[in-house]
Amino acid sequence: MRLPSIPNFDQAAAQKAAHRQDHLTKPQGSLGRLESLSVQLAGMTGRERPRFARKVVIVMAADHGVALEGVSAYPVEVTAQMVENIARNGAAVSVLARQNQARVVVVDIGVAKDVSSLAGVLHRKVAAGSANMLKGPALTHAQAEQAIMVGMQVLDEQAARGLDLVALGEMGIGNTTPASAITAVLTGLPVKEVTGRGTGLDDTGLQNKIQVIEAAIRLNQPDPSNALDVLAKVGGLDIAGLTGVIIASAARRIPVVVDGFISGAAALLAAGLRPEVKPYLIASHLSVEAGHTAICKKLALEPLLDLRMRLGEGSGAVLAFPIIEGAARILDEMATFEEAGVSRND
Amino acid sequence: MRLPSIPNFDQAAAQKAAHRQDHLTKPQGSLGRLESLSVQLAGMTGRERPRFARKVVIVMAADHGVALEGVSAYPVEVTAQMVENIARNGAAVSVLARQNQARVVVVDIGVAKDVSSLAGVLHRKVAAGSANMLKGPALTHAQAEQAIMVGMQVLDEQAARGLDLVALGEMGIGNTTPASAITAVLTGLPVKEVTGRGTGLDDTGLQNKIQVIEAAIRLNQPDPSNALDVLAKVGGLDIAGLTGVIIASAARRIPVVVDGFISGAAALLAAGLRPEVKPYLIASHLSVEAGHTAICKKLALEPLLDLRMRLGEGSGAVLAFPIIEGAARILDEMATFEEAGVSRND
Repeated sequence: MRLPSIPNFDQAAAQKAAHRQDHLTKPQGSLGRLESLSVQLAGMTGRERPRFARKVVIVMAADHGVALEGVSAYPVEVTAQMVENIARNGAAVSVLARQNQARVVVVDIGVAKDVSSLAGVLHRKVAAGSANMLKGPALTHAQAEQAIMVGMQVLDEQAARGLDLVALGEMGIGNTTPASAITAVLTGLPVKEVTGRGTGLDDTGLQNKIQVIEAAIRLNQPDPSNALDVLAKVGGLDIAGLTGVIIASAARRIPVVVDGFISGAAALLAAGLRPEVKPYLIASHLSVEAGHTAICKKLALEPLLDLRMRLGEGSGAVLAFPIIEGAARILDEMATFEEAGVSRND
Repeated sequence: MRLPSIPNFDQAAAQKAAHRQDHLTKPQGSLGRLESLSVQLAGMTGRERPRFARKVVIVMAADHGVALEGVSAYPVEVTAQMVENIARNGAAVSVLARQNQARVVVVDIGVAKDVSSLAGVLHRKVAAGSANMLKGPALTHAQAEQAIMVGMQVLDEQAARGLDLVALGEMGIGNTTPASAITAVLTGLPVKEVTGRGTGLDDTGLQNKIQVIEAAIRLNQPDPSNALDVLAKVGGLDIAGLTGVIIASAARRIPVVVDGFISGAAALLAAGLRPEVKPYLIASHLSVEAGHTAICKKLALEPLLDLRMRLGEGSGAVLAFPIIEGAARILDEMATFEEAGVSRND
């Protein structure tokens, strides 16, 4: 698999942004994380005063063979139904993207049902869902690589249309199960510490889910030092697609807004394949899912929001867009002490 | 002082909104605080599906006699300079309001300097700053009442132009000192627990500030059971104006977005004068200022954001506008399971 090289974080641009922040008409540091975020954005983009007018949320949709094992509160057909709902602008991510003037790109990268006749969907199916990881690897290495390539290609197509900021979204009934498996393998934490209720399992369902994940890891023996192996054995096509989006976005210096737990697992994998992507990641919100905290810790990410959300689709990532844009606008548009003739402190 | 009556929170509208939330195409509760916030907004406005197109941030500007006591890192002339900066759209609140399509109304309710020739400022000066509370009451009861009336009038004028959502802002060098004094008196907490570094005091400055506040409270003996007395003796004109804005806004069922510590102190006072305002308050962010946590606890408010900000001006309140609008849009625009033909969980 050929992956693009990732440019270094631009320290010079970040320093210029930090210098400018210290001359804007406010006490130094008084805008807290808006200031540090603006400096990060400058270093990511290589621009002293970046702007984020052109935004997209890429929603990778796929089914998961393991969903047959009773790991989700919803039936499998909901993946295809929700893809249609997103394509028709009725989903949460549709509403929030419209509010924030972001494009929504929903990609069938592995939905079980044939949705090829649906308009408003990007048809890039790698397989009709992953295999059941309780019986063997979820994906072949070739499928995993192909799905990563699809993600990279989708990002490149969006970049060709003009793109300043990308949010990661996903839709796939059962996909907290591979996300927990990936998180357990790549953080080394026990499965039960990184497994939650997903869309709403009860206690019995949660216990079953934990056992399924433990069994799948035992059976498949994913190699923690090989992110592609982990992705193939206990991952899924939606997560693979997002992994590709992250890598291609970082290669172009486009900041990547991670949503919650599933896209966080993709970020873990992307950082495993290409550690240089890490400076390009922004954590939008802290998910209620137990494993998300572990991912943020591992990647040294501090989420911007904590609103007890756990929907996915990219909803939390898009919700953070105005904060990211606000940070950039503050840096770009505020007057300096000199410009405004305001006295400084001594 | 004649204060308007405040309508009750509309339980029926809130229940309708909660019912609608439970039919939208997402697992129940998966949008966390966006869901509960949307229900609150319905109860505040009395509308099952409220919208917030018309927004304003009202920035009350005033000076404080106590600023002579070395309680601020910035010189007093900065109040007038920053009023001009806001009027010319160069301040942080100007930038964030522009981003979020909100009107900015900056009110000279008590700036020491004569700024009557400044365009883009609402000239409603009650006095050229408050008196030094270390020597006697900051305001007379008549001044405090007049400033509350100014705030109510400004809100009513904005409502006449069309208004769905109001953010509280302020500008006044030294105004964390009256805010700490008010918070100490109305929460009963020791001054040192509710006093912070404001725009950037060092340790010596902070100790001095605490002593000044303690001495002012000892001298003036504000009556904790009488919010007007507290406002007059250890408050200020900016805070009084915001108190009026809150009351007039709640009277019209317009949700009030509290910024940080100073506007939080105004919320404490408004709730002291008219406890019925409480259901109309939304806490936008948790300020770094020590006393703000105590205010949120006292008013049972949970801030939406925690970005380590401490600027004031209404910057945090305006930054929360898109989250509030997002919550309302989710409620209004998302498809229901029935509309989208999506299967429910059992």
